[in-house]
Amino acid sequence: MQRILITGGTGFAASHLLEALLQQGETDIHLTAYRDAGDFAKSLVPDSHIHKLNLSDYQATSDLMQEVMPDQIYHLASLANVGSSFENHQFIMDTHTHLQLNLLEAMRNFVPNARLLHVSTALVYRSSDRALDENATIGPDNPYALSKLTQDMMAYSFHRFAKLDVVRVRPFNHIGERQTAGFVVADLAKSIVEIEKGLSSELKVGNLDSVRDFSDVKDIVQAYILLMHQGQNGEVYNVGSGQGHSIQQILQFLISKAKVRIPISIDPAKIRPVDLNYLVCDNEKIVNLGWSPKYQLRDTLERILHYWRETIIN
Amino acid sequence: MQRILITGGTGFAASHLLEALLQQGETDIHLTAYRDAGDFAKSLVPDSHIHKLNLSDYQATSDLMQEVMPDQIYHLASLANVGSSFENHQFIMDTHTHLQLNLLEAMRNFVPNARLLHVSTALVYRSSDRALDENATIGPDNPYALSKLTQDMMAYSFHRFAKLDVVRVRPFNHIGERQTAGFVVADLAKSIVEIEKGLSSELKVGNLDSVRDFSDVKDIVQAYILLMHQGQNGEVYNVGSGQGHSIQQILQFLISKAKVRIPISIDPAKIRPVDLNYLVCDNEKIVNLGWSPKYQLRDTLERILHYWRETIIN
Repeated sequence: MQRILITGGTGFAASHLLEALLQQGETDIHLTAYRDAGDFAKSLVPDSHIHKLNLSDYQATSDLMQEVMPDQIYHLASLANVGSSFENHQFIMDTHTHLQLNLLEAMRNFVPNARLLHVSTALVYRSSDRALDENATIGPDNPYALSKLTQDMMAYSFHRFAKLDVVRVRPFNHIGERQTAGFVVADLAKSIVEIEKGLSSELKVGNLDSVRDFSDVKDIVQAYILLMHQGQNGEVYNVGSGQGHSIQQILQFLISKAKVRIPISIDPAKIRPVDLNYLVCDNEKIVNLGWSPKYQLRDTLERILHYWRETIIN
Repeated sequence: MQRILITGGTGFAASHLLEALLQQGETDIHLTAYRDAGDFAKSLVPDSHIHKLNLSDYQATSDLMQEVMPDQIYHLASLANVGSSFENHQFIMDTHTHLQLNLLEAMRNFVPNARLLHVSTALVYRSSDRALDENATIGPDNPYALSKLTQDMMAYSFHRFAKLDVVRVRPFNHIGERQTAGFVVADLAKSIVEIEKGLSSELKVGNLDSVRDFSDVKDIVQAYILLMHQGQNGEVYNVGSGQGHSIQQILQFLISKAKVRIPISIDPAKIRPVDLNYLVCDNEKIVNLGWSPKYQLRDTLERILHYWRETIIN
């Protein structure tokens, strides 16, 4: 039995990863949480396996590593909100580089044989009108993406010079229940449900013409588990459905499932200084490893509407 | 007449850039210096144009930008020593990211129409047995290279979202007089001259089989000037001779020009944890812009030996 550590273990994707690992029979799972773990994580993992710490603190990180001694580390800890990053370059950069250095140094010092699955992001690539494979040109468009690229390359760099066992994954957009507001599909679904419940009268939207590769988070975390077991040391893998959909298409589908008429207005504040127009995954490398998406986008979107209907209380 | 600012203006490459700009008739040149400027810079530039400051200090950087109001910024300020970086990850990362953020933010706030030539490095690429063009796979092998990649991408990122006029250049190895010890050719030449002068009895060397693309620094700075004037906004250009030579070949040539017999021993301390074995430039992109190297490697190496013979006093 492998001892598993999930950093950022109480976030959106981590909650689905935790569920999937438990369903596959894993029992020795530890989480880190920056804030208090929510009820969801607490209902699935004993309190003694939830470690509250700030990975930007090296001492706390190395203490954790010595206490848990993981065999496998799913590294999901991250600041998440892209939209706010234009005003906070230095904070984002410092936070992401320090936590990454701390984790890698602590691995090197205390669990040098553990495997790290580093969860990076497709935002490291330069926008292109073609699907992006792992050799696509790097070109982060905003400070958040830049700091994530730095983490990604730091993980690669430690693999190279410290011989750590590191697999990197660059997921494209993923969606599902428990994703928080601030992400486009969650925002749209939440706003629609608020209108259904009479809490709001209008849906405010940003760029509708951007095309993204939306996957069900449950498919994405299956890729993480596959890569933890079968990814090649030192390599990087893109994960996404391979299908592009515009925000407009997503919006129209959600509106078609709404219980009331949804009035729409454009909100200039939701339009970012630079927004990649087309970001779609060439997933051949991970498909060759045996991964394929299982969920239909329309089913996922309906599940998300359902989640918000259960969550928002009027 | 353009007002020019050279950051890191008292370093090795900057000293040659300064000479070349003056020879081409530029007169309004300002330098930044982290420590006191050496006699070389002081002999060429009035004291009032030498600005002593730490670019990691945002206030000092923005004060400088408001005082100088440059049209062109050659950004060479950098920690230089790759070899020591394995012990100092966080310091290197913080220094390079903070100075880069400060410079870019100060440009954005005070000289948003200036052009930045950001001097990056070929070390951002993954080692390959083929010559590397600008689309070669990114893969920094050590913390120094990682921090330089972060600066490179930060410059790109500010071009994208803040619309700054940024050209990046990734030079391969460059050599010449005034390069300090700590770089392979300077080390070899200095050691040989020390033996010639009876100050040492043996030449200690590290990896001899690594192949590098060595250019004369005087050719490299001509590329910088060309790119400042003709580089395309947002683009990146590799600069190197396109010719690979092993350290062994360089060593043999230098020894053939020595005035005494040179005994050699291998020093394990000079062998880095990871050393790229082959790092050669595909220079088609900058050659298409009109650049070509003017100096022969053997002439450059003889000039470097001459420099050390003049510099080392016995």
